[in-house]
Amino acid sequence: MSDSFQSVLDRIAGEIEATPGRGRPADYIPALAAVDPNRFGMAVAELDGTVHGVGDWQQPFSTQSITKVFTLALALAQEDDELWEHVGREPSGNPFNSLVQLEYENGIPRNPFINAGALVVTDRLQFLTGDASGTLRDFLRAESGNPDLTFDLAVADSEAAHGDRNAALAHFMASYGNITCSVPELLDQYIRQCSIEASCGDLALAAGFLARHGIRADGSTLLSRSRAKQVNAVMLTCGTYDAAGDFAHRVGLPGKSGVGGGIIAVVPGRCTVCVWSPGLDERGNSVAGVAALDRFTTHTGLSIF
Amino acid sequence: MSDSFQSVLDRIAGEIEATPGRGRPADYIPALAAVDPNRFGMAVAELDGTVHGVGDWQQPFSTQSITKVFTLALALAQEDDELWEHVGREPSGNPFNSLVQLEYENGIPRNPFINAGALVVTDRLQFLTGDASGTLRDFLRAESGNPDLTFDLAVADSEAAHGDRNAALAHFMASYGNITCSVPELLDQYIRQCSIEASCGDLALAAGFLARHGIRADGSTLLSRSRAKQVNAVMLTCGTYDAAGDFAHRVGLPGKSGVGGGIIAVVPGRCTVCVWSPGLDERGNSVAGVAALDRFTTHTGLSIF
Amino acid sequence: MSDSFQSVLDRIAGEIEATPGRGRPADYIPALAAVDPNRFGMAVAELDGTVHGVGDWQQPFSTQSITKVFTLALALAQEDDELWEHVGREPSGNPFNSLVQLEYENGIPRNPFINAGALVVTDRLQFLTGDASGTLRDFLRAESGNPDLTFDLAVADSEAAHGDRNAALAHFMASYGNITCSVPELLDQYIRQCSIEASCGDLALAAGFLARHGIRADGSTLLSRSRAKQVNAVMLTCGTYDAAGDFAHRVGLPGKSGVGGGIIAVVPGRCTVCVWSPGLDERGNSVAGVAALDRFTTHTGLSIF
Amino acid sequence: MSDSFQSVLDRIAGEIEATPGRGRPADYIPALAAVDPNRFGMAVAELDGTVHGVGDWQQPFSTQSITKVFTLALALAQEDDELWEHVGREPSGNPFNSLVQLEYENGIPRNPFINAGALVVTDRLQFLTGDASGTLRDFLRAESGNPDLTFDLAVADSEAAHGDRNAALAHFMASYGNITCSVPELLDQYIRQCSIEASCGDLALAAGFLARHGIRADGSTLLSRSRAKQVNAVMLTCGTYDAAGDFAHRVGLPGKSGVGGGIIAVVPGRCTVCVWSPGLDERGNSVAGVAALDRFTTHTGLSIF
Repeated sequence: MSDSFQSVLDRIAGEIEATPGRGRPADYIPALAAVDPNRFGMAVAELDGTVHGVGDWQQPFSTQSITKVFTLALALAQEDDELWEHVGREPSGNPFNSLVQLEYENGIPRNPFINAGALVVTDRLQFLTGDASGTLRDFLRAESGNPDLTFDLAVADSEAAHGDRNAALAHFMASYGNITCSVPELLDQYIRQCSIEASCGDLALAAGFLARHGIRADGSTLLSRSRAKQVNAVMLTCGTYDAAGDFAHRVGLPGKSGVGGGIIAVVPGRCTVCVWSPGLDERGNSVAGVAALDRFTTHTGLSIF
Repeated sequence: MSDSFQSVLDRIAGEIEATPGRGRPADYIPALAAVDPNRFGMAVAELDGTVHGVGDWQQPFSTQSITKVFTLALALAQEDDELWEHVGREPSGNPFNSLVQLEYENGIPRNPFINAGALVVTDRLQFLTGDASGTLRDFLRAESGNPDLTFDLAVADSEAAHGDRNAALAHFMASYGNITCSVPELLDQYIRQCSIEASCGDLALAAGFLARHGIRADGSTLLSRSRAKQVNAVMLTCGTYDAAGDFAHRVGLPGKSGVGGGIIAVVPGRCTVCVWSPGLDERGNSVAGVAALDRFTTHTGLSIF
Repeated sequence: MSDSFQSVLDRIAGEIEATPGRGRPADYIPALAAVDPNRFGMAVAELDGTVHGVGDWQQPFSTQSITKVFTLALALAQEDDELWEHVGREPSGNPFNSLVQLEYENGIPRNPFINAGALVVTDRLQFLTGDASGTLRDFLRAESGNPDLTFDLAVADSEAAHGDRNAALAHFMASYGNITCSVPELLDQYIRQCSIEASCGDLALAAGFLARHGIRADGSTLLSRSRAKQVNAVMLTCGTYDAAGDFAHRVGLPGKSGVGGGIIAVVPGRCTVCVWSPGLDERGNSVAGVAALDRFTTHTGLSIF
Repeated sequence: MSDSFQSVLDRIAGEIEATPGRGRPADYIPALAAVDPNRFGMAVAELDGTVHGVGDWQQPFSTQSITKVFTLALALAQEDDELWEHVGREPSGNPFNSLVQLEYENGIPRNPFINAGALVVTDRLQFLTGDASGTLRDFLRAESGNPDLTFDLAVADSEAAHGDRNAALAHFMASYGNITCSVPELLDQYIRQCSIEASCGDLALAAGFLARHGIRADGSTLLSRSRAKQVNAVMLTCGTYDAAGDFAHRVGLPGKSGVGGGIIAVVPGRCTVCVWSPGLDERGNSVAGVAALDRFTTHTGLSIF
């Protein structure tokens, strides 16, 4: 089916090109706002590391919230169930920045993919490793085989200048005793983490362990089969902000999006997919990206449902 | 694998029997509160209608919210996407009776499985067929092959006597123009629907169309492949009240629970499972039922993730 | 100062006439929507029953929520502190129909002047007297000396046809055990109560007991001095929907408004004021009415602060 | 009535002493938790500056939120209505730290007395004067005639160590553009402000301008008559956290409490009262303080209602 993956990608690229109206890039970070909304790339990585791509699939872009999947996996690999005492795994039912539920639930964020929950995961990883963003970068480099993959410090600086919302979340959870590091240290790590640049090809490869039931590219085990399954479950129920139900309904795969316009999706036991196009819908997901994944499951019949 | 389904069920029944602490039956309806919490039954239906069972798998119990899956499918079969103008498909992130989001979202319930959303679906089905509960009963009889499957009017009367919360929801949505029938007619239909009694065997068979990508027991099409996939997606993200994330994480299958203690789960393309045990956890899901499904996916390796 | 009350009223009427832009009448009830928004009347009643008026001060209008002050006083006169177990006395901090806090606070409304709280007060009065709306009508007739004051059944019928929101509130509180009568009986009483027609002169006289520290027109005691003080306190903190702070800030008197365009205000130990003009602001208070009361306290120096 | 003020205070002190059960001091700041909960002082200041006191009325205590009244007045004196574009004046209907409404209302706090609103007021005062806490200290010294009145830096340090909640609020409002100073500068000023120590006698004198319709002790004008009235109105509707309705109902005077156990109250045109006792009820108000003010209005008949 390697041939057919390539032909499916080519077909999707053609269909997407013919479709106008791609939403708008995130505008709160100048470096993101400047990207051409018509860029489009997509890659599929098979279990053995074979990669197929189309369009701008080798172009690095800002990974942003996609990194939350990897820090979650890395923190779970370190401390297992203890992580779930600091963050829940239920959908939030509210926009991704909401403080409301955080207050009603005493500083324990609903899941690892809303910003509050991702801050908690980074806090745990920083506490456990002493260098959360470095640990993440090294993991992504190892899995993708791309030694140049790194932070974009201009994006990080931009985010730091607009970081009041994340600072509010971190201080708020700290007031409940749910943050271990100092807030400035946490925010610095978090912003670096989100600034990592990677391509569709890099990310499809890096997410491969989720399709291989926890096994890394070199054959070693990052997560148990059961843990890998659970990360996929959290992606499906919580991975696309307030549109998780719609994404499950339409695409039918575990997925995680970022405001840089990227989305990764997992077909357990089969392959991983990464798509990138910077124009976002009003819920923060890539318009062309969701459309491309919708076509991918339609054309291939690969859906978990 | 027919043999192994039976042996898996036998193994699970033994494991469950050895586990004390089963929660408490729902106590707001006398007829439900009176049921022995130690009852336990489980059935698997294969795609061709072969059924395997263990324990009280032929014992009828009160289906309650499990019926919401079937009315959703029946309404979608009638009117397709128009239904989604009346009800959303996002997780609610709040306990199942919550009025809060309903108010913030102008009377459109978040999904078809919270009570407000189920009322809307029944309202649509009643509007479209003139007899929502009868349509449901006839469908369940046809799929299960059990002509005796019917309403438990004592349970219906009990519910009617404690129906202020549902009346509030219905009137509230009516105030936004999102209810077509009269509120008393809707409540009557809804209460009858929830009072249907069926066994694990009946329900595993009746849900078979969700494993067969929309095809009914007689080979006719209820839903398109895409629609059937979407119902499974809604079950996964919203099917177990405020524990959908936890259920996906632990069991890894689309599922729908009811306060009667039943749960149905779907392995797309493979089989359906129904388990029953009346003791509930604090979120309204059967304690032994969730534990049994957790073991089912562990023992068989059948998970969508 | 009798002369000066009349001259103050005349002055205010002139100033209001010169001010364009009076908001819009409530439009959910046809009988209210049809009223000319330029109507304006105002009356002051001194402690001894002397009344001064200007404009349409003798014109009956739909009292609506103004009646909530009187049913509160009548229920307190009957059962004293027990009433406060069924309804709170804190500002709601949310629009007047909100179900949100009701849910978080287990069916006990925040105060007697939001709709939920007014339903509870009417329920108590109905339980205690067997005829809440008749008791209210008789009280208003006695205090105003107007034997023709009565219900407007066309308005009541209109409200009944748009009563889903109140039905939702009543059933919701009944689900928490906080309603004693049957919901249909309660709604019928409540709608009749709100439909009472009275003029500015009638209402200024009828509210006189609040300026006389609980003493009725005939010298008998309705409420103790302490109770009367407390009703005024609830009016100040909760009497004008979500604008109580703004009203206190601007007018500086206990007041209660209705969507018919009327407002009553109390100068304890001195007089009562009633103003009517049907055009409402976006928070449901009479635009010209609030402006007139603002001028009244400015011109007379009569403010409680 | 000077004699009778003293005799009323003596009577209240006797009654309070006979009443056991005084609540618990605030425990989140060690310096506050260490205070003996049985301390009790009360002072009345007449319009001409005559002071009457009983018990520990000359003992300095931590003023905490009481300072919010003074910074509000000082900011209003500087910039008038522009302040109300940054903070509302409606009761919050939620506990005093709530972030919920802040989020729904785009970073504009409901009123100047919840913590978020007080931060905004201090931010404005800091922006306008360059030294908010110094301006406040100087004002309190001038009005009380006590040149030793100053900050308690140990309390300020304690608060700084537990300041995550306030930091969260400040960053959150900054994310909406509603904070002008830098967050650390604001927090430093706010914590210093709250740490001011003053006695009942000091504070009764310092609040005198609110009873004198805006006129300072030296006869100069701080606020117009209308502005002073408005500050009193905000105190009445919002001055005692989530118990404003109950306080108005029970005491019937504009009042402002602090977690140090102090409360100031105003009888417009007549006098000011300050009471102190460190034991708090579950809503953060001094138990003996509220009881003493209740008795004060009962014994003197001085209530605004």
